[in-house]
Amino acid sequence: MQHFSAADFLSWERFYRANVISGLSGFKPAFLIGTQDLLGRPNLALFQNIVHLGANPALIGLVNRPREASPHTLANLEATGWLSLNAVGASFVEQAHQCSAKYEDGISEFDATGLTLLQRPGIPVPFVAESPVQVVLRVEQVLPLPLNGTHFIIGSVQQFFLADGLLGPDGYLCAEKAELVCTAGLDAYYLPARIGRFAYAKPGKEVTPIQ
Amino acid sequence: MQHFSAADFLSWERFYRANVISGLSGFKPAFLIGTQDLLGRPNLALFQNIVHLGANPALIGLVNRPREASPHTLANLEATGWLSLNAVGASFVEQAHQCSAKYEDGISEFDATGLTLLQRPGIPVPFVAESPVQVVLRVEQVLPLPLNGTHFIIGSVQQFFLADGLLGPDGYLCAEKAELVCTAGLDAYYLPARIGRFAYAKPGKEVTPIQ
Repeated sequence: MQHFSAADFLSWERFYRANVISGLSGFKPAFLIGTQDLLGRPNLALFQNIVHLGANPALIGLVNRPREASPHTLANLEATGWLSLNAVGASFVEQAHQCSAKYEDGISEFDATGLTLLQRPGIPVPFVAESPVQVVLRVEQVLPLPLNGTHFIIGSVQQFFLADGLLGPDGYLCAEKAELVCTAGLDAYYLPARIGRFAYAKPGKEVTPIQ
Repeated sequence: MQHFSAADFLSWERFYRANVISGLSGFKPAFLIGTQDLLGRPNLALFQNIVHLGANPALIGLVNRPREASPHTLANLEATGWLSLNAVGASFVEQAHQCSAKYEDGISEFDATGLTLLQRPGIPVPFVAESPVQVVLRVEQVLPLPLNGTHFIIGSVQQFFLADGLLGPDGYLCAEKAELVCTAGLDAYYLPARIGRFAYAKPGKEVTPIQ
């Protein structure tokens, strides 16, 4: 194996280091986060660092970059208390990537990329109509992480919308039917193919495929 | 689309709800977290909820379930201040899944699953020899999340080990060469195939493939 110490990667050129270090933590989900400001102007941003915190209460966490690098989503969700998660499908991965560009305040990523703005009565967040998994989160907590200026945002699931036919009989959400993508590093997109599902693991019991 | 409200999913059977809600946040990375207790006894646990926090300083965050549900990793990393991330490859995905079983305190998941324990002089964490991406993290912060009893652990990358040939000329870590897997929901494993990489996005500029 190749070995790298902190002295090595501290000496690397900035973009080289960012590629390597961002790759160390593996594949990530890809979501467009929808928010709006107090004037109702919509914003979309690409997020990859998203975690499942629990099913009951239904909580999802996401990492927002430092405020100066990525201000719009953070300001909007702090102002309104709401955001939407829109899972990225393979059919619009280039448009999703373009949403990571730094547009000026007031420029809508919907207009800039051609993704279709979907608004639903009574819900103060925009949705991406092309997305097969659309989740409404209410902001529960915004935790500043002083170690590097990022923020850990915790939202509670209030409602969600799924393309028809994604849910299996046991509630398994079949991500490949929706052609959801995942990401790696800063700029790579992947389409995952299922290896298998395995039954709940117990000590002394063989690993058992489901179905 | 199908629509589900909080009233719907609060009424669902517990395992059905866990499958659906855990699927909403998409694909996740798969890592075996290696720790040891103060007696040097090794422990492995499967983690999926892992985020890249930043490259400089090099920080990675991970979610630990409530202490009563998953006590060993948390107790060990609090006692020693160290953990290892070992990326799960397709060749040992069943053994990795088995590490999610609740073994009693003092039972080594290495012994129970047949994964190969690798220890390196001067580093107080065990590694999974089969893993192509092995990262040493020093614990920087353990943030309890009172909303549901989980913990957000922040570690700084101190050193790492990569299988030969994974790094591209620009530092891109080629996860598919290592056959790294990702997960979905509670129990599904996937092998991702690359769609493409895209150059850094800028307003008004076309999305450009890399290579």
